[in-house]
Amino acid sequence: MATQERAIRTRMAILEAAGAVFDEYGYSSTTLTMVLERAQVTKGALYFHFQSKEALAQAVLDEQVQLGTVPPQACKLQEVIDMTFAVAHRLLDNALLRGSVRLTVDQSAPPGVDHSGPFRQWPVHLVSLMEEARAQGELLPSVRPQETVELLVGAFAGIQLMSRALTDREDLGRRISILWGHILPSLAVPGLMPSIDTAPDRGARVTAAMVAV
Amino acid sequence: MATQERAIRTRMAILEAAGAVFDEYGYSSTTLTMVLERAQVTKGALYFHFQSKEALAQAVLDEQVQLGTVPPQACKLQEVIDMTFAVAHRLLDNALLRGSVRLTVDQSAPPGVDHSGPFRQWPVHLVSLMEEARAQGELLPSVRPQETVELLVGAFAGIQLMSRALTDREDLGRRISILWGHILPSLAVPGLMPSIDTAPDRGARVTAAMVAV
Repeated sequence: MATQERAIRTRMAILEAAGAVFDEYGYSSTTLTMVLERAQVTKGALYFHFQSKEALAQAVLDEQVQLGTVPPQACKLQEVIDMTFAVAHRLLDNALLRGSVRLTVDQSAPPGVDHSGPFRQWPVHLVSLMEEARAQGELLPSVRPQETVELLVGAFAGIQLMSRALTDREDLGRRISILWGHILPSLAVPGLMPSIDTAPDRGARVTAAMVAV
Repeated sequence: MATQERAIRTRMAILEAAGAVFDEYGYSSTTLTMVLERAQVTKGALYFHFQSKEALAQAVLDEQVQLGTVPPQACKLQEVIDMTFAVAHRLLDNALLRGSVRLTVDQSAPPGVDHSGPFRQWPVHLVSLMEEARAQGELLPSVRPQETVELLVGAFAGIQLMSRALTDREDLGRRISILWGHILPSLAVPGLMPSIDTAPDRGARVTAAMVAV
């Protein structure tokens, strides 16, 4: 294995371990020693990639949006929907994503960590998909993409928190399905509605399709 | 002042101080000494009312739902809407509510504190209003009150977090208005729509009306 490839793997192993520890203990109670023990790397390897707990937390936060990647869809509104279901599904077992989401909603992160970054990054990503949806005639004329995607991001953050608190996120797919059931009629042109999939298990199917590729 | 009345006032002063400290520092970093200094009460007074930090946090959480009280409305769906706007407005300056909400979304609360209690208590309260709305013919036949109110509570929790992170909750009224703009068409019978008020400043007006009474 080339040196560079090994470095990338080590970095990812550290990020995954950090996600797991941040998810379990929160920012304040996490130490770099806990992370290097979980990642099974040396202190030297950890410090080579991340100089501080702040830098590590920032890197975990910066990974969040790309963990929402889904296969492209002809219907761009379906692709927006798929991202919400994919993130909901991955929150069940992806430690890096879980830790990153916990850091986002954690009010105790220090000034050195931009823990609200994902609240700005998700809308940037989603609004471009919504603009594509608009260009393809999928949206009602009343839709304002920026308002809609910020609503989606905020609502998702709270729904996953509530689902985590009540059922350890077991019912998150169902809750996201209910969210879409309520807001889709305000977004999609009526002719599109029958073909849009917002079933609770959408996330499992979208994710399985990506693994199979 | 009678002894009982004084005890009630002291208890409320402690709860308000605790809310402020929990809001500012989170559960883990809060100490009872910080609370008694903020409340300007003796250690004896604090321990008379609350035997532990867990008990104090639980009491702060238990106050949350009643801080959503709004004047009764002929239209019960409007009353549900008013509660969301009133809570959004009070989050700007009510320290007890702010602390209580932070504890609800705080994943670091210990097992002795039922921090997810509000996620169960709000729906119980809201669903009875939605049933009244249904009985009065305000709702579309497709509405399932339990699903709708759980969506509202979860979405609200995240929207206020996002608003807090991005604007210190300054734009929360606007974000709640956008939430209702998206879901109201899925809830209200069309004839009701023009008379329903979901303007961003609804919370300020509802709260002012209560103070004036």
